Amino acid sequence: MQNFVLHNPTTIIFGTDTVHQIGRETAPFGKKVLLVYGQGSIKNNNIHAQVTSALQQAGLDVVEHGGVRSNPLLSHVQAGIAKARLNRVEAIVAVGGGSVIDSAKAIAAGIPVDHNVWQFFRGKKSIRSALPLTCVLTLAASGSEMNGGMVITNELTRQKFGTGNRLLNPKVSILDPSLTFTVPADYTAYGAVDAIAHILEFYFTTRDRSTPVQDRFMEGLVINIMESCDKVLGNPYDYQGRADLMWAATLALNGWTAAGLGMVGFPMHMIEHSLSALYNIAHGAGLSIVIPSWMRYQARLNPEKFMQFAHRVFGLSGDSENCAMEGIAYLQRWFTSVKSPVSLAAAGIQAEDIPLIAENALPLAKLWRLKDYTKEIIMEILSGCR
Amino acid sequence: MQNFVLHNPTTIIFGTDTVHQIGRETAPFGKKVLLVYGQGSIKNNNIHAQVTSALQQAGLDVVEHGGVRSNPLLSHVQAGIAKARLNRVEAIVAVGGGSVIDSAKAIAAGIPVDHNVWQFFRGKKSIRSALPLTCVLTLAASGSEMNGGMVITNELTRQKFGTGNRLLNPKVSILDPSLTFTVPADYTAYGAVDAIAHILEFYFTTRDRSTPVQDRFMEGLVINIMESCDKVLGNPYDYQGRADLMWAATLALNGWTAAGLGMVGFPMHMIEHSLSALYNIAHGAGLSIVIPSWMRYQARLNPEKFMQFAHRVFGLSGDSENCAMEGIAYLQRWFTSVKSPVSLAAAGIQAEDIPLIAENALPLAKLWRLKDYTKEIIMEILSGCR
Repeated sequence: MQNFVLHNPTTIIFGTDTVHQIGRETAPFGKKVLLVYGQGSIKNNNIHAQVTSALQQAGLDVVEHGGVRSNPLLSHVQAGIAKARLNRVEAIVAVGGGSVIDSAKAIAAGIPVDHNVWQFFRGKKSIRSALPLTCVLTLAASGSEMNGGMVITNELTRQKFGTGNRLLNPKVSILDPSLTFTVPADYTAYGAVDAIAHILEFYFTTRDRSTPVQDRFMEGLVINIMESCDKVLGNPYDYQGRADLMWAATLALNGWTAAGLGMVGFPMHMIEHSLSALYNIAHGAGLSIVIPSWMRYQARLNPEKFMQFAHRVFGLSGDSENCAMEGIAYLQRWFTSVKSPVSLAAAGIQAEDIPLIAENALPLAKLWRLKDYTKEIIMEILSGCR
Repeated sequence: MQNFVLHNPTTIIFGTDTVHQIGRETAPFGKKVLLVYGQGSIKNNNIHAQVTSALQQAGLDVVEHGGVRSNPLLSHVQAGIAKARLNRVEAIVAVGGGSVIDSAKAIAAGIPVDHNVWQFFRGKKSIRSALPLTCVLTLAASGSEMNGGMVITNELTRQKFGTGNRLLNPKVSILDPSLTFTVPADYTAYGAVDAIAHILEFYFTTRDRSTPVQDRFMEGLVINIMESCDKVLGNPYDYQGRADLMWAATLALNGWTAAGLGMVGFPMHMIEHSLSALYNIAHGAGLSIVIPSWMRYQARLNPEKFMQFAHRVFGLSGDSENCAMEGIAYLQRWFTSVKSPVSLAAAGIQAEDIPLIAENALPLAKLWRLKDYTKEIIMEILSGCR
């Protein structure tokens, strides 16, 4: 185990009938709030009304900033910063999934500074303060509700970059699994894939070969994410399944799994970001395309951990590279079973684009210090996405 | 999964060469600190010198309060409160295991109030404020380093009671596994048993039959605690083993495993507290005596969860009560293998004392709302401790 510092100050309020608490939980942070949300689904299913009513009952003035799309855009973040400044908001309330929460974080970090918020993502500036943020989560996927990370797409440069800071941890996040009853099957599956990807990035990129506590935690989460996803795809209104999926997705990226692993990388996300930046496909869909190929590439370099994964997650036996590859095939088949694409072709991406995608990925590989990932290696992994 | 609120604000600094940070981490909380520690082992192994030097370098005045014994005493807590008041200390620094940290918490909670601190343990008063606490952990066992719980023994009434409050969460806890290299084999094992007991209390007393995320987390921790304990009993200077054992013991009782389980009880601790209150045996030793018998008692009432335990922790198969019992026998054999006692006789306790022990346990059963535990049932469980 490597040395680590762990401090996650986010308060999680988990369960049914908790949304009304958003007013009381936000009130300590200011009188005027910016309410950030997405494309309006929260208006159809009544969450918007519940949240605004709770905020108003707590005596808060609400400035609305809806319209966040998936793969959230820098321009929309910048509009939010301008609106927040104009209205002198003191806190941000995000109601949505990872795209909404990430946009809210970028707004929270961008308000206090006089430079372009994109500078944070380019690693040119450090986040030193941020407005307080509270959240109501509506999608089990990104884990953003309990960490300080955020990912934004710059539509001008066609770059999807991520950064983070512990100042961006939400103060409070409300996780009511029943809010996800109406998430459609495809986005439910993409969310599960995203959560699995977060775990696999840690699990397979740590260079520490002795992390048994974290390993078992992560293996258990992967199994639980698959099982609960299967359950809710069978019955979208299965509360226990939605709850397990939501909590497991939060745990996948809240710092607990990664504590003690030392340096880890996010190579699968790095490559995927170029798919969603260039083709605006859903992040989870992009990940299920990249993951199996990346795993096969990596298992050839270091099969041991992939064998452990095959043994413990899929109950396979054997101690050869074949067993490692069989575990990867099982995971790929699970992606297919939940209808998340596993090839570039399935997402309508031509093989001839591979050099272009790899080119797009290079700046992020550099920024995230994934030194081993040359254009050739990224192309090799992309060529294996089938 | 049941509704829950989770907020654990303790900062964990984990790893080698971290003890010197105790000065810097404590300084924000005051100029004058009470340094609470145990029977002096930290003087023999140089930890005391490291800590006081770090505190002094950070500009802090140190008032010493050593001498905490295992099964820590109320009188010593009261002496600490008096000393802290007299010296107007502003923060508490605990250097030790659970007994020391629990004593430091009781002192921190007792300083601001004008009543006997025991009132908190009797449930007669609520904790509404406490002095800030920082810790340097020297024993993998209680989990007190990352929670708000504490257990104190009242030597006059011969009662060992526990209570807690989130205000007692340490601000910062420093966990350097190498500080536990010199913990003798018996206390290493008792610490492992204690951590396992914390998990089993949650795992087997939740009435929620659908907690798969928490179950796998807990099952993984039990396996890791046994494996890492075996490792360090083989080689006390095995850093990875000490690290895994220390972190797993913290995770066993920091709120993460229990989140979502709903109401849980601590019946094994309830019964054990009477063993250590009456005979001053080590807490872990008392637990390994009680656990197998309690598990057999409980498995007869509700075998399913015990079968799952047998399957996943010990790799057993079968779906009968026999399989459940076999899993318990495996655990009991593991206790024996690490030389933690599994019978009253092994701890020199006479069978004729059983009514007396059960009588002593009743007030705590009432206080902890373990309604099912009549004197007869406690006697039945104690009679099975063989």
